[in-house]
Amino acid sequence: MSLIVAKFGGSSVSDAASIRRVAGRIAQMRLDGHEVVVVVSAMGDTTDELIELAEQVSDGAEQPRREMDILLTAGERISMALLALAIHSFGVKAQSFTGQQAGVLTDSAYGNARIIDVTPSRISKCVGKGNVAIVAGFQGVNVDSNDVTTLGRGGSDTTAVALAAALHADVCEIYTDVDGVFTADPRIVPTARRIDVVTSEEMLELAANGAKILHLRAVEYARRYGVTLHVRSSFSMLEGTRVITPAPGEEHAMEAPIISGVAHDRSQAKATLVGVPDVPGAAARIFETVAAAGANIDMIVQNVSVQGTGETDISFTLPAADIAVVRPALDALAQELGYREVQYRDNIGKLSLIGAGMRSHPGVSAKLFGALRDAGVNIEMISTSEIRLSVVTSSDDLDTAVRAVHTAFGLDAAEVEAVVYGGTGR
Amino acid sequence: MSLIVAKFGGSSVSDAASIRRVAGRIAQMRLDGHEVVVVVSAMGDTTDELIELAEQVSDGAEQPRREMDILLTAGERISMALLALAIHSFGVKAQSFTGQQAGVLTDSAYGNARIIDVTPSRISKCVGKGNVAIVAGFQGVNVDSNDVTTLGRGGSDTTAVALAAALHADVCEIYTDVDGVFTADPRIVPTARRIDVVTSEEMLELAANGAKILHLRAVEYARRYGVTLHVRSSFSMLEGTRVITPAPGEEHAMEAPIISGVAHDRSQAKATLVGVPDVPGAAARIFETVAAAGANIDMIVQNVSVQGTGETDISFTLPAADIAVVRPALDALAQELGYREVQYRDNIGKLSLIGAGMRSHPGVSAKLFGALRDAGVNIEMISTSEIRLSVVTSSDDLDTAVRAVHTAFGLDAAEVEAVVYGGTGR
Repeated sequence: MSLIVAKFGGSSVSDAASIRRVAGRIAQMRLDGHEVVVVVSAMGDTTDELIELAEQVSDGAEQPRREMDILLTAGERISMALLALAIHSFGVKAQSFTGQQAGVLTDSAYGNARIIDVTPSRISKCVGKGNVAIVAGFQGVNVDSNDVTTLGRGGSDTTAVALAAALHADVCEIYTDVDGVFTADPRIVPTARRIDVVTSEEMLELAANGAKILHLRAVEYARRYGVTLHVRSSFSMLEGTRVITPAPGEEHAMEAPIISGVAHDRSQAKATLVGVPDVPGAAARIFETVAAAGANIDMIVQNVSVQGTGETDISFTLPAADIAVVRPALDALAQELGYREVQYRDNIGKLSLIGAGMRSHPGVSAKLFGALRDAGVNIEMISTSEIRLSVVTSSDDLDTAVRAVHTAFGLDAAEVEAVVYGGTGR
Repeated sequence: MSLIVAKFGGSSVSDAASIRRVAGRIAQMRLDGHEVVVVVSAMGDTTDELIELAEQVSDGAEQPRREMDILLTAGERISMALLALAIHSFGVKAQSFTGQQAGVLTDSAYGNARIIDVTPSRISKCVGKGNVAIVAGFQGVNVDSNDVTTLGRGGSDTTAVALAAALHADVCEIYTDVDGVFTADPRIVPTARRIDVVTSEEMLELAANGAKILHLRAVEYARRYGVTLHVRSSFSMLEGTRVITPAPGEEHAMEAPIISGVAHDRSQAKATLVGVPDVPGAAARIFETVAAAGANIDMIVQNVSVQGTGETDISFTLPAADIAVVRPALDALAQELGYREVQYRDNIGKLSLIGAGMRSHPGVSAKLFGALRDAGVNIEMISTSEIRLSVVTSSDDLDTAVRAVHTAFGLDAAEVEAVVYGGTGR
């Protein structure tokens, strides 16, 4: 018998029939002898519908975040209660709990709150009695005023991982509408292959660089607390993908491919400040200003100073949605720093090659650049981390680039290179 | 400046446009200088839709009441947050609160919980800062386990009255989709007239005998705590009906008509036990049995024992919906008591004539029976209270009966008799 935390996303509970299908699966887990805690998202498009209603009643006025959070958490209350009712109809007892009742305590950052602590005593008691506990994902209660908060889009993943950590669950299963984590987005790369096992470190890079299958914060949380994630489909019985966090020192004992996958991201834009005086502190002032405006910068490129001009160009990428807040701030700063103009481009795409094996394998970047050259793709920016190589291309070239790189690194189905680190050698 | 508790029902907030209309009205109350606490129901048919979803996922299985209550309270969370957003857009600050946050503490009778206490410190604080407080109607939290409970259908009225009592509000306004309390249902009696003022005692009888405009429990609560209710339309600026509770001793100082109105009820059925042995304790056993089955009995008639047979017939009325639970209980009891059969009829109607003035005016019953005789309506059962006279007729005759009685007692528009009690005499 093991303790399973299982999270079901909105597409898995989109209507009454789906809820019954999921309920049957949960009931079977319990009948198989497992202790089961379920985290559930709002049904299908509920959250989007509530946001649309909020737009209509607000008539363009600013929307207080506290009220928006109360509104949006209604979706999970509906789905969790319905799921409990459905599980009951399979002869298994189930009780549903709000984020507050499940002890999910957060800060007061409405709309994007962070979990401060999880005190799931009611959940433990419920499971201890042999019942299935259903917990509303995406929501908590702030410690300051006991008001409802939300954890941001995709926050149900985080709820599940946080509960799994607090309950010392054996595994945290993330049920979704795809069969697991793939070497690339199958809609772009038809030969993409499901990954059996990936480290949380690699998954972090995949999630941070455009793979939408897991919420970034949830993977961070899983990595920090050593929670094993199991990503799988609620529509099939396939094995899915395990996201593991090897204990320190054990990272290299596992068999792992050099490259785990290719992620892509079309949501970024590129800003270029033209003619920035090449004086100490200019870059610091620029990025302080962007950070103060609330934008998350990803890649930065500073060209070498053009001989004799004493000027340089600075480019960086940021979420396209953040241009609106950054533009006035950078326009104001132009007066102070004396750069000539700021150019914005949102038709860019980012490709990221990710693999823990990169650490010990030189030549990955040369192979990447060669593949892109052969495919006729121009590279605009480059950035790297220890286990990631990212390039920015024009958005028109992105699909071509992803397919070329996927093939070049042998990721196409049934061609994967498996490299054995440590003990046994290759 | 006064403190107003204003309740808006589901038909007043059925869509985004309605919510904006109601929000504008609330914002104006605040701008007029009043302190405002709003109680809101779920939007339009939300509750019915949630019940339908629950039916679908339960697939005929029993539905745990705790889960149903969590489900149904989602509707008010949505409407309260949307209303707060809409009020904001009119430039007035508003915060929404769940039943729990508003301090509505109940017992654990899921589905039909009773309010044990109201501790609205957060509401007082919110209003004290000049903000409008929006409270979810129909819901509370039980003191045993901190779980969400519902107060039963129409429970938002009770929430409003309980909050008005706890906050010592000047008035509790109940906004609905009709212009106030009428002397009869205007759909049956086109000449029915809006009542300006009615006592809570009369309103109790009206509500208990079929008038659906106010929840019975809310009127009881208002009467107990001396809360003045003001029933009015959210679709017009008409004056509506005030429901007042005169202080003890002052009841007779007010000007009041003999008859306040005619209520009718089509939801009752009649059960007749034929051939009950006329022995002591038989009736007690019968009504103990019916009560144990959970049915609410209204009127009871026992015929005199037929000479020489030692047998009698006992008839009573009960909600038609309760026949299903009563039937097996009474069938079983027939073995013990030896009555021959139980006949059920659900095509009956009840007419109730209500007025505090009845106390001091003999001849009301003679006038009632005369009016029904002249209209050719047969009376099947009769019951009376101090301020009420009820008769059961066939349901086919009910509309005719209501119109005839309404006319006979001069209730048709502009013909009302006003009688002055106490000081000034007639």
